[in-house]
Amino acid sequence: MATSEHESRSTYDELEARIKRISNVGNATGVLYWDQQTKMPEGGTPARAKQLSALQSIQHELLTEERTGELLSELESGELDDEQAAVVREIRRWYERAIDVPSELVTELAETSSEAQPAWQEAKAEDEFETFEPYLDRLRELQIERAEQIDPDKDPYEVMFEDGEPYLPLSTVERIFDELRDGLIPLIEDIQENGADIADDAFAGIYDTETQEEVARDALDVLGYDWNRGRLDTAPHPFMSGTQFDARVTTRYDENDPLDSLTATIHEFGHATYQLGLRDDAYGTPLGDSRSSGIHESQSRFWENHVGRTKAFWELFLPTFKDRFPQADDVTVDEAYKAINQVFTDNTIRVEADELTYHMHIILRSEIEKEFVAGELDVEEIPARWNELMDDYLGVVPGTDSAGCLQDIHWTSRFGGFQNYTVGSVFAAQLWATIEEELDEPMERIREGDFAPIRDWLTENIHQQGQRYTTDELIEEVTGEPLTADYFLDYVTEKYEAIYELD
Amino acid sequence: MATSEHESRSTYDELEARIKRISNVGNATGVLYWDQQTKMPEGGTPARAKQLSALQSIQHELLTEERTGELLSELESGELDDEQAAVVREIRRWYERAIDVPSELVTELAETSSEAQPAWQEAKAEDEFETFEPYLDRLRELQIERAEQIDPDKDPYEVMFEDGEPYLPLSTVERIFDELRDGLIPLIEDIQENGADIADDAFAGIYDTETQEEVARDALDVLGYDWNRGRLDTAPHPFMSGTQFDARVTTRYDENDPLDSLTATIHEFGHATYQLGLRDDAYGTPLGDSRSSGIHESQSRFWENHVGRTKAFWELFLPTFKDRFPQADDVTVDEAYKAINQVFTDNTIRVEADELTYHMHIILRSEIEKEFVAGELDVEEIPARWNELMDDYLGVVPGTDSAGCLQDIHWTSRFGGFQNYTVGSVFAAQLWATIEEELDEPMERIREGDFAPIRDWLTENIHQQGQRYTTDELIEEVTGEPLTADYFLDYVTEKYEAIYELD
Repeated sequence: MATSEHESRSTYDELEARIKRISNVGNATGVLYWDQQTKMPEGGTPARAKQLSALQSIQHELLTEERTGELLSELESGELDDEQAAVVREIRRWYERAIDVPSELVTELAETSSEAQPAWQEAKAEDEFETFEPYLDRLRELQIERAEQIDPDKDPYEVMFEDGEPYLPLSTVERIFDELRDGLIPLIEDIQENGADIADDAFAGIYDTETQEEVARDALDVLGYDWNRGRLDTAPHPFMSGTQFDARVTTRYDENDPLDSLTATIHEFGHATYQLGLRDDAYGTPLGDSRSSGIHESQSRFWENHVGRTKAFWELFLPTFKDRFPQADDVTVDEAYKAINQVFTDNTIRVEADELTYHMHIILRSEIEKEFVAGELDVEEIPARWNELMDDYLGVVPGTDSAGCLQDIHWTSRFGGFQNYTVGSVFAAQLWATIEEELDEPMERIREGDFAPIRDWLTENIHQQGQRYTTDELIEEVTGEPLTADYFLDYVTEKYEAIYELD
Repeated sequence: MATSEHESRSTYDELEARIKRISNVGNATGVLYWDQQTKMPEGGTPARAKQLSALQSIQHELLTEERTGELLSELESGELDDEQAAVVREIRRWYERAIDVPSELVTELAETSSEAQPAWQEAKAEDEFETFEPYLDRLRELQIERAEQIDPDKDPYEVMFEDGEPYLPLSTVERIFDELRDGLIPLIEDIQENGADIADDAFAGIYDTETQEEVARDALDVLGYDWNRGRLDTAPHPFMSGTQFDARVTTRYDENDPLDSLTATIHEFGHATYQLGLRDDAYGTPLGDSRSSGIHESQSRFWENHVGRTKAFWELFLPTFKDRFPQADDVTVDEAYKAINQVFTDNTIRVEADELTYHMHIILRSEIEKEFVAGELDVEEIPARWNELMDDYLGVVPGTDSAGCLQDIHWTSRFGGFQNYTVGSVFAAQLWATIEEELDEPMERIREGDFAPIRDWLTENIHQQGQRYTTDELIEEVTGEPLTADYFLDYVTEKYEAIYELD
């Protein structure tokens, strides 16, 4: 029927225009956030907080307008092609989660969260967990209330997890975590007990930060970053921000550690590559948006670990590094490779962890969060539980809560988000295994600095898909099987056994 | 009556919350614009245009919601203190101008304006006025239609002028322009005919732009710019952007002309000082916002001309300049003073004009605009009319339309805005005269680099007032008399007669 088709087309157009507008407000918020982290003078803070909060509440109101629901219902009862159906599915999901939560609760959560941040900061600075306790306890209450509003029949922690990853069941992720726990703990113990001394001081010395920035730019050049749609700046906590038209990388510089800025830069390059690979013509719609935070993290971990931490990459890049830093002239490729893959067995800080112990930090947080949300753990029991699990998993106990359960800011805004970091690493390994089958000697391409085949493969298979597939569908579509820990465990076992000469 | 007072207080609070929200969207738009001009990679253009347009339309919708009108009417029929009455007056004005214009017309104007910009760019690049003609003609039609929607009983050009300056009658401004025309033309002719050769090549040579940036920072330091609430960046067309919490200066650098970046920096510093002087506690309301573009320009012109172009300032600043640029070691204060005040009698470009000829460029534009809007001038007659008036006023005719009637982008967005540049200069001179009476030897303070008394006086008398007074009220309140050209004419006559040794 021509008329009905025409009608559904124009209903669809209306929904699309609506979601584009909402996305534009979100992207504007992203620019304000980037500016705040990289350029804004300190004094701008009070006004910026108000601007961000105005945009966020406007975005919420636009999304939850009655008309959004009407358009969705109309479209759901009509004929839609695959792409349209995906768009409607994603907007419906976003809409439901927004409309289910009373606005007073949204406001109270936002306020409690913003009060909790300075309290957390103070608690961390003073090493006094008690200062943070009442906020954390109240946040648990409010987050549980929110979760129950969204789905009273589901475990609240599951609902929280689904905020970040709606299409991978928590049970699947937990099964993968079990496998990681079983595989990683013995490997880490093995390294702690039998690990040969590796070249951890290959890059000892002072590396001036201006030259480090040139090295970071060199790395982005080599990897093929599109400077016409991006830029590099400094931020205390590196992040990526932007869209397919403008995806910006940030990094930080430590004059004692030139590898830190480099891995951070390559990590954020991975995130930027995902954004830049999204469809230009679908800007502002779910088809032109990234799939989920886990998939996003797979892209950053892919470039950071499967490219930036390979021997092939250092064969390619070490000469460039030495051109900038002649002081490193004696470092060999083997030493560089070992230095960038060093396992810090006495480290207690997640963000300073290596590719191996990192995931034990994540698993620990997921377990504690879950116990806390379930009421199995009282707020004051968290520090002891933290230290107990650190000892179990990594054989090291932080000397202070600041270096333990107070190290991350995440709980001031949500629970159930940490898992995606590990999902990203696991899927990155699975992607590398697929790429090894589908591309002609990808490791050789890295050695030659010919990154286009790898970049293009990821763009075609992941980035250009946007949110057309759900996360589990996308994983199967691209790799031919569901998410599995096997490739990651094989990869780290082989890599670290070789580096630490374990047998 | 306690109840009624309470009621009107809560109605007022609701209006205030509403206007703060709208202002926050506007300020977010300002951040996006600043970013676009200073940091955004080229490729970001399409997405940024969409983000800006979304925020602008949202701001318009929030302002024109029925509830805004209801709150205004309620408050207007009740008791309000002076500040509240000013807030209601300003919001009413903004609301009426927004609500009077049908949204289709708003959209058509925005679209025509954004299509006109590349057409203007092309016309200017190719020196082909014909390319721009149809757009300019259509813009005239649409702008007249808009003006008639706002006030069908008023001359449309007057309505257009009132967009930027609602509280100074156009007739007042035109009377001042007549006085300027009468005073300036003979002075300019005198300089052209009898002007002694002044030291226009005192700063000949190449000045590297990195060092120029250091000089610009020195100047901002000396003037007392609050770096905790601001920053300095480069932009092709210098501008200031921000709020009382974060007011950013931009400038540009020309290696052949170190005075250009310096005057641009000091000019934008003046704008920033206005923003930074606004009341923190009134952020987001008319009481914490600048009065009008004419008053804003008075602050930039005050610092640029009455401070930055004085001999006293160069006595203070030339040693700093020479520290950065030893190549200028032989330049004397007198030479620097003359160089920064040089009259370029054969210049045809407004933005390169000196303090004297500049206003003839403005008067010419105002006359042509007015004739064009009144239908006394057809679009194709503009170039000839332009050249005729240039000859009359400045005795010089541009060789091309690109250097003539195509030089400014302004007409692609509006008519009736140029006057405020001259209002700013005229009021700046009036302010200086008042300051000379009220402060203890202000010129001595400049010579000593003690800018606080001047800055504080402006902050107290102008900035902290926000929009409490209307423009004409503010001018009288601060200087004791209405806007007058007298002080400006006395100032330039005395200054330029001395520099050019005219009698």
